[in-house]
Amino acid sequence: MRQATTILTFDTPGRGLTDITRAIAVWQREIGIGEGLLTLLCRHTSASLLIQENAAREVRSDLVAWLDRVAPEGAYYDHDDEGPDDMPAHLKATLTGVNLSIPVIGGQMSLGTWQGIYLAEHRRMPHQREVALHLFGA
Amino acid sequence: MRQATTILTFDTPGRGLTDITRAIAVWQREIGIGEGLLTLLCRHTSASLLIQENAAREVRSDLVAWLDRVAPEGAYYDHDDEGPDDMPAHLKATLTGVNLSIPVIGGQMSLGTWQGIYLAEHRRMPHQREVALHLFGA
Amino acid sequence: MRQATTILTFDTPGRGLTDITRAIAVWQREIGIGEGLLTLLCRHTSASLLIQENAAREVRSDLVAWLDRVAPEGAYYDHDDEGPDDMPAHLKATLTGVNLSIPVIGGQMSLGTWQGIYLAEHRRMPHQREVALHLFGA
Repeated sequence: MRQATTILTFDTPGRGLTDITRAIAVWQREIGIGEGLLTLLCRHTSASLLIQENAAREVRSDLVAWLDRVAPEGAYYDHDDEGPDDMPAHLKATLTGVNLSIPVIGGQMSLGTWQGIYLAEHRRMPHQREVALHLFGA
Repeated sequence: MRQATTILTFDTPGRGLTDITRAIAVWQREIGIGEGLLTLLCRHTSASLLIQENAAREVRSDLVAWLDRVAPEGAYYDHDDEGPDDMPAHLKATLTGVNLSIPVIGGQMSLGTWQGIYLAEHRRMPHQREVALHLFGA
Repeated sequence: MRQATTILTFDTPGRGLTDITRAIAVWQREIGIGEGLLTLLCRHTSASLLIQENAAREVRSDLVAWLDRVAPEGAYYDHDDEGPDDMPAHLKATLTGVNLSIPVIGGQMSLGTWQGIYLAEHRRMPHQREVALHLFGA
């Protein structure tokens, strides 16, 4: 049993979902662990991680639009230091969560056929986001 | 320290929560790890995993009804390939999440007295759902 | 590679967020693992764990107020054994989640600069809450 850690950096184009499955899989294969556990932590409070469908593009745009309805911009918040999209971004990050743990089986992440790993940017503007990774196993 | 992985399959009766605590505990005891970490990943994008109260049945029905209010069916979505319950199911899976990690202490999952592990089916129809499991420890 | 587990107890002052980052870090450093994985599980169904901003206090109060809007008290629920804040507390715990996994890198939890770990109490009254912890690594 051995382990590895790293921090990967991703550029987001502003609000929306960025598929990071391939980058995560590349690192996982480099480490060369066939069976184990992979954990991801998004190191931010206005971006997050989620697993969702990787096929129909509308699933992602509908999801982003729904988050806007559940955590709308508006006069609800005391915290608006960085603009009207700031506090809704914190709420969306809380709803979706900032960490994921994925069993590795047979040399691959045990994701379902239609599952991809997405970095969710909740701010309007592009950002550089860090994801901490931990992988262990044999 | 050693590890084990498996994929368990569960039949869901359509929308609602299925208690999978016992099946998970049976596998955990078979592996025979007394102290460690157990991780579960639901391999789908319209079903999910959550930990909630295992006593009062109304907690689960109220939870399912609340998810319907937060992510209602209706004319909100571009994605409806599989019917009106399709996109709400993706949203509910995102809100509740598809993975759980549970410390194992003294030979048992360290769940609280009132906590059960539930597979949440968000589609109307019955489905067969896979949960990937990873357990390691000593 | 070695592991450790414990259960920490926290007193909450009623509804709101309690920063438990320091207590978790103290335990993590006592165990003395420099690289590894730390997992937390809140052993309750009306309290939960989340990672959010540790700087502006308004982020936390806005978050608590938002949870009240998303899961309001009212005549929506069949389950009210313990009062009107009971079922909303279960819903808020489900939305935010009861477990976190955090890579440990270079002797520290790999949290971002602005991230803190919060125990979220969703009941009105003060409670004593247990968090199960698992840490392993080298």
